[in-house]
Amino acid sequence: MGSHSESELAFLSIRQAAGLLRRREISPVELVDAALARIERWSPKLHVFLTVLTKQARTQAQRAEREIRRGNIKGPLYGIPISLKDNFWTQAIRTTAGSKILADFVPPSDSDVAQSLSQAGAILLGKTNMHEFAYGITGENPHYGSSRNPWAPDRISGGSSGGSAVAVATGMGFASVGTDTGGSIRIPAALCGIVGLKPTFGLVSVEGVVPLSRSFDHVGPLARNVTDACILLEAIAGKYPRGETRPRDRALRKKQKFRLGWPRDFFFERVDGEIESAIKVAAKKFEELGAGIEPVSMPQLADSVDRATHLVVAEASYYHQSQGYYPSRSQDYGDDVRGHLEWGHKVSAVDYLAAIESRQKVEQAFAAALKKVDAILTPTSPIPAPRIGESQVRTLGERETTVRAELLRMTRPANLTGLPAISVPCGLTSEGLPIGLQLIGERWGEARLLAMALAYEEATPWHRRHPQLG
Amino acid sequence: MGSHSESELAFLSIRQAAGLLRRREISPVELVDAALARIERWSPKLHVFLTVLTKQARTQAQRAEREIRRGNIKGPLYGIPISLKDNFWTQAIRTTAGSKILADFVPPSDSDVAQSLSQAGAILLGKTNMHEFAYGITGENPHYGSSRNPWAPDRISGGSSGGSAVAVATGMGFASVGTDTGGSIRIPAALCGIVGLKPTFGLVSVEGVVPLSRSFDHVGPLARNVTDACILLEAIAGKYPRGETRPRDRALRKKQKFRLGWPRDFFFERVDGEIESAIKVAAKKFEELGAGIEPVSMPQLADSVDRATHLVVAEASYYHQSQGYYPSRSQDYGDDVRGHLEWGHKVSAVDYLAAIESRQKVEQAFAAALKKVDAILTPTSPIPAPRIGESQVRTLGERETTVRAELLRMTRPANLTGLPAISVPCGLTSEGLPIGLQLIGERWGEARLLAMALAYEEATPWHRRHPQLG
Repeated sequence: MGSHSESELAFLSIRQAAGLLRRREISPVELVDAALARIERWSPKLHVFLTVLTKQARTQAQRAEREIRRGNIKGPLYGIPISLKDNFWTQAIRTTAGSKILADFVPPSDSDVAQSLSQAGAILLGKTNMHEFAYGITGENPHYGSSRNPWAPDRISGGSSGGSAVAVATGMGFASVGTDTGGSIRIPAALCGIVGLKPTFGLVSVEGVVPLSRSFDHVGPLARNVTDACILLEAIAGKYPRGETRPRDRALRKKQKFRLGWPRDFFFERVDGEIESAIKVAAKKFEELGAGIEPVSMPQLADSVDRATHLVVAEASYYHQSQGYYPSRSQDYGDDVRGHLEWGHKVSAVDYLAAIESRQKVEQAFAAALKKVDAILTPTSPIPAPRIGESQVRTLGERETTVRAELLRMTRPANLTGLPAISVPCGLTSEGLPIGLQLIGERWGEARLLAMALAYEEATPWHRRHPQLG
Repeated sequence: MGSHSESELAFLSIRQAAGLLRRREISPVELVDAALARIERWSPKLHVFLTVLTKQARTQAQRAEREIRRGNIKGPLYGIPISLKDNFWTQAIRTTAGSKILADFVPPSDSDVAQSLSQAGAILLGKTNMHEFAYGITGENPHYGSSRNPWAPDRISGGSSGGSAVAVATGMGFASVGTDTGGSIRIPAALCGIVGLKPTFGLVSVEGVVPLSRSFDHVGPLARNVTDACILLEAIAGKYPRGETRPRDRALRKKQKFRLGWPRDFFFERVDGEIESAIKVAAKKFEELGAGIEPVSMPQLADSVDRATHLVVAEASYYHQSQGYYPSRSQDYGDDVRGHLEWGHKVSAVDYLAAIESRQKVEQAFAAALKKVDAILTPTSPIPAPRIGESQVRTLGERETTVRAELLRMTRPANLTGLPAISVPCGLTSEGLPIGLQLIGERWGEARLLAMALAYEEATPWHRRHPQLG
């Protein structure tokens, strides 16, 4: 032991680390110490963690070390330090959901996910920063500071799982678990150059997660590579319907033939030129790997997606009202979240019912496309990480739109449909900002989706690039 | 043939009529002629039918007569004249839904129910009057005249299936099929002294029914006795889940032990004295028949039911907007329906979501009560038929309430829960107005519910009382 540098330890894959732990070439204490050192050094600058569990993590690491010495190693996550977004209930550990309203909230019990990770032997380093109540896609936070992009600290990390993405990208733990209601795992993953997976709706329990919009809330992993994401998913996933294949880390490499859909509409409208090029290069790479690329048509998708958004905002406003947070504690919200909640209160029930119909149209459009192909290939974000504080973009066409609307545009459809979607690093812009591609797959099709993502990842260098921290 | 008077023919039970037809002691032509004679005589006064299919019904009756002569009789409804509420699509036959907006609408195809009845060999006499768009509980109609109570023509029939109830009560056909979104089968059945069954939500197809609120719309029979209601249900019901008992006319008489719940809360608040007495006498009768009567508690039910009503009005407003009827044809609605639609447009999505939670509370209250008993016994209406034009009642307590609110109070819970509920005649007030009792049973429990109702009916005289028409 002791022959690995902090940075080597911090950027191992989970599989590599598990192997070294098993062979007792490293100890969980070293892994935890390396992660904690990086958290101590950079988290205050990048606003990554809201709570760091220094003492608890070290104690757990020592216990894991003893168990490993006795030969008790219980799976690939055993002794692996990870983090959790701060909207997962953790028993006796403050859970703020990035809000002032829950600043002092200490849950009486663990969320299902916290419990699963603990049972898998993962070591919790702390709770990560996030967009307030997960109600925003930039990761900017007026109460705890905005999580900063490690590739360019004047830029946003993306959100709402911003702290989780930054932590994973910078070696503050091997992986994190976040939530995704409109893109909140995939967007920060793309902007920070890591892998983010939003599984099929209902696959991972949301029990003990502070809700945003229950019909659209998903839980999933952020990791530095596809295999690690798969290992995390194995630990937190619930039951699959009979006949569906569970994703298994070891099974992903099985050679398969894929057909990928290239959407002619919606997903390539108003996309940054460098990002569009990167996705086209990625499509070529998929072809070299033997995948067929077929154009798919999804007309009127933009309109249906826009209308269906009424469902999300109304559910959020209902939750905050039912908890007695809004409007009674209006002044305790950030301006953006307060604005969203006000909007949600203005949605009429008739519009809500119309939105249900629009959502069905979105579902039908994807169902039709996914009859012909195994997954749809899109950019994860149509723009690279904007600067912190920037709220409007005009670069993509004549009309000026909001950063929020642009960032959500590619990811929201998979929340409306509940289809699994993954973001995988696929390049860097000329300014050195990460680019992510998104694959949207079939319901319960995580195994196939991860296999496609892995085939791409193994043929490309992007997941091995890490940001240089000052 | 020819030995039965018109009135004898008109008030036969379906079983008796089917027996006479089979033995060729009567002909379908006689049955149809008797019904048509009554329609011709009294429908214009009582506003019962919107469309009478004189010629078509006679032609069908003649064809049925020929088939019967050849020995082709295809079940208990074969050759039996019935009617349909005018919100069921009937191919090439005008279907107004009691509205001015659809005054000239001729459907391109049959509703599922119209098709099922036709396949069963029933003969359609015509389409019955109803509250406009089924959006009202009195049967008053500004476009086609208000259907009148045959027991007291200055009083309402109840609605929205008012024409159906009056037709059945007065021998204008053996039975009718109506719809019930808040009580629209059971209320007119109770006020007109007949049997009305609202089956479990989803049991009978609503395909081809002009919707009121799709989550709460139910289709069911109105008949002069429980057995006839069962025969109608057999003809129109879809599939039961595996393991559940389908109601069969012949099986209802099987001796069973019942436990009835007597709700201490909600259902006996503010009930007319004579009606309360009649239900208590009915409870005694059930006890004599061997049923156990147990008090059940349903606290806070009134509040939850009130809140959940937001769902119904919002869905109705959404439908009328999505069809382009409202607001563009506002002036073509009656004042009451226009008022309801305006109200529905004012419901916010947040209130709609709160209403979903209230509905779940109603469901939980009934699920808890129905663990202890087989059915809950209540009045069908807390008041006897009000006068036409009366909109307020003050008789039941200090506060004045609307006729609409009072009439819906007992029946709406079974729409919110989807539980099957039946109204059975159980007395007459001192003014000679019918009183109905309601039994609310378990989901898919029609067989047991009908058996309880039949046991009561066979031990009491009320279903044999018919109104005297001038």
